[in-house]
Amino acid sequence: MPKVFFTPGPAQLYPTFEPHVLTAVREQIGSISHRSKQFKAIYQHADEQLRLLLHIPATHAILFTGSATEIWERALQNGSGRESFHLVNGSFSKRFYEFASELGRTAHKVEAPFGSGFNLDDIILPEGVELVCLTHNETSSGVSTTVADIHQLKRRYPDKLFVVDMVSSAPYPDFDFSLVDSAFFSVQKGFGLPAGLGVWIVNERFLHKAESLKAQGTYIGTHHSLPTLWKNYKSFETPATPNVLGIYLLGRVAQDMNQKGITEIRRETENRAERIYKLLEDHPVLKPAVTNPKHRSHTVLVASTTDSAPAIIEGLKAKNIVIGSGYGTYKETQIRIANFPANTEEQVGSLLTALQKSS
Amino acid sequence: MPKVFFTPGPAQLYPTFEPHVLTAVREQIGSISHRSKQFKAIYQHADEQLRLLLHIPATHAILFTGSATEIWERALQNGSGRESFHLVNGSFSKRFYEFASELGRTAHKVEAPFGSGFNLDDIILPEGVELVCLTHNETSSGVSTTVADIHQLKRRYPDKLFVVDMVSSAPYPDFDFSLVDSAFFSVQKGFGLPAGLGVWIVNERFLHKAESLKAQGTYIGTHHSLPTLWKNYKSFETPATPNVLGIYLLGRVAQDMNQKGITEIRRETENRAERIYKLLEDHPVLKPAVTNPKHRSHTVLVASTTDSAPAIIEGLKAKNIVIGSGYGTYKETQIRIANFPANTEEQVGSLLTALQKSS
Repeated sequence: MPKVFFTPGPAQLYPTFEPHVLTAVREQIGSISHRSKQFKAIYQHADEQLRLLLHIPATHAILFTGSATEIWERALQNGSGRESFHLVNGSFSKRFYEFASELGRTAHKVEAPFGSGFNLDDIILPEGVELVCLTHNETSSGVSTTVADIHQLKRRYPDKLFVVDMVSSAPYPDFDFSLVDSAFFSVQKGFGLPAGLGVWIVNERFLHKAESLKAQGTYIGTHHSLPTLWKNYKSFETPATPNVLGIYLLGRVAQDMNQKGITEIRRETENRAERIYKLLEDHPVLKPAVTNPKHRSHTVLVASTTDSAPAIIEGLKAKNIVIGSGYGTYKETQIRIANFPANTEEQVGSLLTALQKSS
Repeated sequence: MPKVFFTPGPAQLYPTFEPHVLTAVREQIGSISHRSKQFKAIYQHADEQLRLLLHIPATHAILFTGSATEIWERALQNGSGRESFHLVNGSFSKRFYEFASELGRTAHKVEAPFGSGFNLDDIILPEGVELVCLTHNETSSGVSTTVADIHQLKRRYPDKLFVVDMVSSAPYPDFDFSLVDSAFFSVQKGFGLPAGLGVWIVNERFLHKAESLKAQGTYIGTHHSLPTLWKNYKSFETPATPNVLGIYLLGRVAQDMNQKGITEIRRETENRAERIYKLLEDHPVLKPAVTNPKHRSHTVLVASTTDSAPAIIEGLKAKNIVIGSGYGTYKETQIRIANFPANTEEQVGSLLTALQKSS
């Protein structure tokens, strides 16, 4: 019997993944040249469907890398010559921050304890900061920053470049891309696809910054420098042979999502998150780990437990339901439940029933 | 009717690709955590099968990146602080050389005209060179350097690190890895798999060089610096979520190749190359583009034509046989034929018959 995954990535595959991969095998997508018209049409299709889904304007390009982790590096290399700023409240936002130091940037941070969010009204950005790095959804702790708060911070600092990690929330957040210079995600989370592809949405201002850094002699990367990626993008090509199959599948799944409608996907995400949090609040041993409801993620829901978390996870696994363990040192005391569009209503129902009985 | 690909990558998929991908779908490989025991077993299996296939000793790790192009960047970052050396005789070896300059290294080169190889006995390496970058098989021109010549150059310069691009020749060349510090390839060529995975074979000496560069303050990368990749490798993990499906398929296909036997694969590759070159030599309009038989590639065979190359390619396409076009400015006058293990004897027979009639 197949397992049902509620893991925060790799995750449950989108229901149409299997027919699409069978079509790809039949159409020999794995053999086509990445310089062919056929590949360019695949890239263009993915681009069009993602634009429609996430309301991405013509000012922004959609680029592909090996992973979202790689985009941390590329965004920092291309968007900051000296100083970056980070909001850190968990393992992934911390790693993004550390990358800046490894790259020799002066990395400023405001840190919140694991499980807590930020009051963005209080944030004062140092003057020298060129790039503001935000994590919309901290996958390790299940803390989100609201889209409205991110927009508001950018309105206060319109001249600084903003890059938003939406790795474990896309396609849920409804960003106004006139206020988000760059955002990125990987496909093995909310898009329900096998891992191995990062998606980098980035605007012309960011490109100009990269070009000016390069002109000043700053190292901005080789094949995956922003100018090189962008130049290839103009003809729907990539600098290196990309994960063609992954791009094909992403375009197909984004199209299926558009068919369902992003409004419906967002409504469903919110409705399911609400039901799961309600269950956790009334549960004898589980409780939402994020105390402030405003900062609770809609897509990665973390619960603390007074019982053994591994025992709860094992209990669900016996019912073929796979959820995530607590991150790092929270392995024994927390569970993580992904709420991604790939799961069906029936699967969510089974999860709720099984969680109810976990005690 | 399915097409048969003799393109130099992406290429014909290995005959067992389809059953393996169906197994992967059934076993939900796309959903498993990259921190799970199941993933570690997949990595370990690929590692063991590649070691067996290519005779890779315990001194070398096997690491995964997004592409072989990325390995150009990572190898240069981690293997040279100041000076690298390159043999350049085509578009890919040239790009490898250019990466070194983009990374701020002093890049030395010896250049041969497109279609020519090197006499490695004549090569004198400048004293300051830390990393020697060789392209075993130049995919653009179909020129190879013999394995024996590469070994001999390393014997003359045992203290310098050698990295060999075997992108479009692996698994054919039989390297003695005690004389090759590092080698790399991507999976969409000789391994007959969909693109989106680079494979980096690299030894402890290379790791120590990277560590010493880092200690001196040289930037060697973030998640894909060699020390970070290596540290994760020790427990069969990766720093970022990798192309899990690609690694799974690579392990399976390497196992299938081991079942056939690498000796038989190499013998078959040589036999087929010989038959194709023989046909080209006797052909009314096609001729081997590489004049020196010693430098003719066994895996990417390039022919010059007095007729229109695009017309020949179209003629074969009408028979569902896809070959590669000449590279760059050679589009009108050359064709490229991949001779990779994925093609069956029957397919090679059809290619020979069709080529014979091309005039």
